[in-house]
Amino acid sequence: MTTTARRGRPRGEGTDARILEAAHELLLERGYDGYSIDEVAQRAGVAKTTLYRRWPTKDHLIVAVVAKIQDDVPVTDTGNIRHDLVTYLEAIVAGLDRMRRVGRGREPGDRSAGLVAEIVAAAARHPDVGQAVRAVFARRNALPLALLESARARGDLNPDARPDVIFDELAGAVYYRLLITGEPFGGDYASRLVDQVLAGARTPSPRAERS
Amino acid sequence: MTTTARRGRPRGEGTDARILEAAHELLLERGYDGYSIDEVAQRAGVAKTTLYRRWPTKDHLIVAVVAKIQDDVPVTDTGNIRHDLVTYLEAIVAGLDRMRRVGRGREPGDRSAGLVAEIVAAAARHPDVGQAVRAVFARRNALPLALLESARARGDLNPDARPDVIFDELAGAVYYRLLITGEPFGGDYASRLVDQVLAGARTPSPRAERS
Repeated sequence: MTTTARRGRPRGEGTDARILEAAHELLLERGYDGYSIDEVAQRAGVAKTTLYRRWPTKDHLIVAVVAKIQDDVPVTDTGNIRHDLVTYLEAIVAGLDRMRRVGRGREPGDRSAGLVAEIVAAAARHPDVGQAVRAVFARRNALPLALLESARARGDLNPDARPDVIFDELAGAVYYRLLITGEPFGGDYASRLVDQVLAGARTPSPRAERS
Repeated sequence: MTTTARRGRPRGEGTDARILEAAHELLLERGYDGYSIDEVAQRAGVAKTTLYRRWPTKDHLIVAVVAKIQDDVPVTDTGNIRHDLVTYLEAIVAGLDRMRRVGRGREPGDRSAGLVAEIVAAAARHPDVGQAVRAVFARRNALPLALLESARARGDLNPDARPDVIFDELAGAVYYRLLITGEPFGGDYASRLVDQVLAGARTPSPRAERS
């Protein structure tokens, strides 16, 4: 696996997947600061040059892990905002639940936030990681935000409703449960949450009753 | 400062505050795994025995830091749910914003989540820390949950509204902005959020319009 062997060809899906999987595992085992990129190459069974060519630093690698996780969440505009948000949030909940469970010998019922917490910590500790992770979220969150904007534009939401606040309520509730309280998600959590949030977004603004 | 010198008397507020402040600073500088309890004692200028007697491990210490932060947030039931939630969330937002800014030479405009991210990571990595931190949040969150329960009981909220989901929307939105997107809080963020959320909690359940 020399440099010339693969030059000009896309690297195999299998190699990339193995590298991201190994990075993911090492993050869980030792935290962002506790492993090296060389160890990722070793665990993935790829040449270091392969890894460095694609992701020159751990910062690039963690951002790739985040982007991969995000890209697995589908966002479709069917014109039914409730349906589309429930589908989107159910995928987020399932993905976060999976991440909570993976890793070294977690007990069943372990409520650790796992990988997501490591990413949050790395983003807080390393400004470059923080900036890149926030950029990945901004790019991906633009999709559900566009769903909310469309719904508002066609009159399904109150004209005063602010999509950014509504989105914070939805995504925030899910991440809060994962990262802070560790409460498990019931099977209908996503649909209950969407119903509750949309009820607020569909009514006239309560500004008039300010205390 | 021997064991007998203080036995039977509450330790001075000043000593405890200095210890928690030092733990807080070291967390920010090196992360949970990067410092020792002896260093906390040294930085706080207290005898190790003083510190170990009160908080025998780093786990106990981080939980005390979290509890102290939480205890600074007032929760009052005036009977006006909007007012009480806005007051509560404004205090949370102000507290989180402060935590984002403290620490070693942060640039203005730095969007790192700082200490909160370190706590989240420690809670995910160390099962005992996780359990204790979640217990602190559960105990404190019972207060705003009780506000929502009272409001529902006196008919200010829809009888179908679920206080736990409503609370997730409120606290979640704020933590999501801090930990994930890094978006700054505008001056009226807390009141906009409460208005949006309460509008949903005050209307009839949208279950009938399930798609």
